[in-house]
Amino acid sequence: MVETQDPQFRRESGRLQVGEHGFDLASQRGHVQRVVLAERLLSPDSSVLAAALADRPALIVMTPSVLRHHGARLRAYLHAARPGQRHELMVVRRTEATKDLAAVTEICDRAAATRLPRRSPIVAFGGGVCSDLCGLAAALHRRGVPHIKVPTTLVGLIDAGIGTKNAVNHDGRKSGLGSFHPPEYSLLDPGFLRTLPHRQLRNGLAEAIKLAIAADPVLFEHLETHGAALAARQFRPDDGAITELIRRAVQGMLEELALSPYESIDKLRRKMDLGHTFSPEVESASDHLVLHGEAVAVDLALSSQLAAQLGILRPADLERVLALLETCGLPLTWSKLSADALWASLAGVVDHRDGELNLVVPTGIGGCVFLDLADIDLALVRSSIELLRRRATSRSTSGARLLSLP
Amino acid sequence: MVETQDPQFRRESGRLQVGEHGFDLASQRGHVQRVVLAERLLSPDSSVLAAALADRPALIVMTPSVLRHHGARLRAYLHAARPGQRHELMVVRRTEATKDLAAVTEICDRAAATRLPRRSPIVAFGGGVCSDLCGLAAALHRRGVPHIKVPTTLVGLIDAGIGTKNAVNHDGRKSGLGSFHPPEYSLLDPGFLRTLPHRQLRNGLAEAIKLAIAADPVLFEHLETHGAALAARQFRPDDGAITELIRRAVQGMLEELALSPYESIDKLRRKMDLGHTFSPEVESASDHLVLHGEAVAVDLALSSQLAAQLGILRPADLERVLALLETCGLPLTWSKLSADALWASLAGVVDHRDGELNLVVPTGIGGCVFLDLADIDLALVRSSIELLRRRATSRSTSGARLLSLP
Ligand SMILES: NC(=O)c1ccc[n+]([C@@H]2O[C@H](COP(=O)([O-])OP(=O)(O)OC[C@H]3O[C@@H](n4cnc5c(N)ncnc54)[C@H](O)[C@@H]3O)[C@@H](O)[C@H]2O)c1
Ligand SMILES: NC(=O)c1ccc[n+]([C@@H]2O[C@H](COP(=O)([O-])OP(=O)(O)OC[C@H]3O[C@@H](n4cnc5c(N)ncnc54)[C@H](O)[C@@H]3O)[C@@H](O)[C@H]2O)c1
Ligand SMILES: [Zn+2]
Ligand SMILES: [Zn+2]
Repeated sequence: MVETQDPQFRRESGRLQVGEHGFDLASQRGHVQRVVLAERLLSPDSSVLAAALADRPALIVMTPSVLRHHGARLRAYLHAARPGQRHELMVVRRTEATKDLAAVTEICDRAAATRLPRRSPIVAFGGGVCSDLCGLAAALHRRGVPHIKVPTTLVGLIDAGIGTKNAVNHDGRKSGLGSFHPPEYSLLDPGFLRTLPHRQLRNGLAEAIKLAIAADPVLFEHLETHGAALAARQFRPDDGAITELIRRAVQGMLEELALSPYESIDKLRRKMDLGHTFSPEVESASDHLVLHGEAVAVDLALSSQLAAQLGILRPADLERVLALLETCGLPLTWSKLSADALWASLAGVVDHRDGELNLVVPTGIGGCVFLDLADIDLALVRSSIELLRRRATSRSTSGARLLSLP
Repeated sequence: MVETQDPQFRRESGRLQVGEHGFDLASQRGHVQRVVLAERLLSPDSSVLAAALADRPALIVMTPSVLRHHGARLRAYLHAARPGQRHELMVVRRTEATKDLAAVTEICDRAAATRLPRRSPIVAFGGGVCSDLCGLAAALHRRGVPHIKVPTTLVGLIDAGIGTKNAVNHDGRKSGLGSFHPPEYSLLDPGFLRTLPHRQLRNGLAEAIKLAIAADPVLFEHLETHGAALAARQFRPDDGAITELIRRAVQGMLEELALSPYESIDKLRRKMDLGHTFSPEVESASDHLVLHGEAVAVDLALSSQLAAQLGILRPADLERVLALLETCGLPLTWSKLSADALWASLAGVVDHRDGELNLVVPTGIGGCVFLDLADIDLALVRSSIELLRRRATSRSTSGARLLSLP
């Protein structure tokens, strides 16, 4: 599916092109989505970003912290690599709480005000919030203009920066409005992670663990070996561990996309929903003080514990899941987690998934099944939480495993 | 391309399904776009609409005049054909001047507030304004839900109700924001035209004439024969003339879509832009008192006159074009048309089309070429307008041919 290239060649050509099979939609529109693993994207001798921008003016969008950490390098790169070319830099002061349609139209309006030609790309230089805003802006502006994703967070590198869908929150509804609009390029440089706060890094590791449990035992082993170092941000740009993590995660994502580019419309049973059934309630009950990835970790632990109690998951595999979460500095549960609140929230999930719960639980490392509401009950949820809480409080000294936030 | 079916069979199955070739995108998403010519859609013995809605609740959106003319019949139909099923009827008080993103999100919010399941369609029951709003709402709500178009204007029946793109005006920019999202069904019932104001009907005829000049000499002859009666709304539901017009126009649209489903992104040279180079200026200079189709007629006459003066179009063919516009009660020019203003507006067109004018002019009935700015000049535009104005004032008694509005 993914034409991986050896690092030598990769460094030369700078790209890791996705086979046509991976992106029928993109290729149908006359341009294939290219996912490029390109280390040192902003170094003066890399031509990857310049090649992606081609001979077009560009609107480059970023959040303030990305500007602070990488803005100067970006400017220097563009200045040297594309002399005389027009670059509109735009800073959007938006976070998860303000990722809305108004932010999207602000980007469209900037593209219009600066008379960006239709073939010019909107470049998302940042995390998932930035890429969702830019992706949707590119989908809507003039009924669609090109866009390029340069993810700078781990979530971006393994998920938001590759996906074909983009969404914003609307009227209290998470991802209430969005669209499918594949980027022309996803340019993946793990080097940006050097400035990413540790907590954001762990947040991304949770999504990698989800992918590993759901579909990739080799990735799981990779995380068992390197998770502790990664969580501590002990990696250099050339470190094989982070690159390999990204490569495998991306491959998993792309295979999933190749199977169903429109999965959220056409398929309600998605194994990638693992870790995403209880997590929305954790996020909202905490007023989003618990980050998405942390909530996913809590959900992964709970789903696995439930599966073990139902005899679906072997105790040894449960132990591997919980130990990996601990290794990566992720919580197994949240101090304020309420079985009653979780149980009550499932009605909304069923509603959202058009009538079925489709709770994804692991059957082992690399496989999972879907459970319905009738397969579980409140007492089971309660006892599972209790078991996890006991483990977390007994073992944890840092408190990270039993997430306690104000 | 279009599997036309004989009327007998058509009445039975009620559908005229588009071959896969016509809608790669739609078929790729797992559901083919079906274009159904279905007369008497709301008669108690028709199952077409009920079959399209299937066993799903639906949100049905219309403008006030459609509610007034057809609301009671629709309610009666749904009541009888889908007893016990949930229908949310929503009236949007929007016109071309207020076709904006806020109207789109109002529709999404209604879908959310009434807890419409994801598989439920948003049904646009109305003209192009209604279908653009619904199409974009369906594209964005929950990253995409199904939608169905039931056009009730001639523009809807031959264009807006079939197309895959939907757009709204934004911040002064016509169709500034939009998306590609093919409807599940386009249900075409010419019977709705019986209540359509004459001026709106002629408005639609202008687009049919555009199609005919650009690509379909048989449609052109059909309009020469039946145009006068159609413009006078002298047709009954069973009248072959209007059905044949719609069938041919739809076929032309679908062939165009099959060639380039994303034409506005990928191709800047679109023969369907015939009649759409000078018309935006006419619409905006008149503060939209000149309707879109009227402005298209003015543009068609001017583009043809220009082509004739350049020796590209034979005088006999110019005569046929102008005579057909007159037959259909459409203007050849507008009393306030200014050559200088038109000329000045072309800079904006070039800008919008990314650097080239691509003025489409006919080479005959059923063919056209693209001209660049260097091919024409202000004096030519001025003399062409003068010739048309003389013809219109000398021949017209009704004044319809030289459009004079307050
Ligand atoms: N569309 C998709 O396919 C998809 C997939 C996953 C997640 N998402 C969305 O992505 C969002 C989460 O993305 P995220 O986890 O990247 O968070 P984020 O975009 O909010 O970024 C987290 C924080 O890190 C900062 N930051 C980014 N890169 C940095 C760097 N290199 N150094 C220092 N600071 C940096 C950002 O400015 C921000 O303050 C959510 O809104 C989620 O819904 C979308
Ligand atoms: N997306 C596309 O592919 C596409 C193509 C062409 C046009 N359009 C858009 O469509 C719009 C024009 O559409 P339109 O010409 O249908 O105008 P419209 O939708 O504004 O309708 C014209 C008027 O007729 C009324 N009406 C509709 N059906 C009626 C009926 N059967 N009887 C009585 N009154 C009726 C409407 O309420 C409205 O007042 C423009 O905004 C244009 O941009 C979109
Ligand atoms: Zn997630
Ligand atoms: Zn038009």
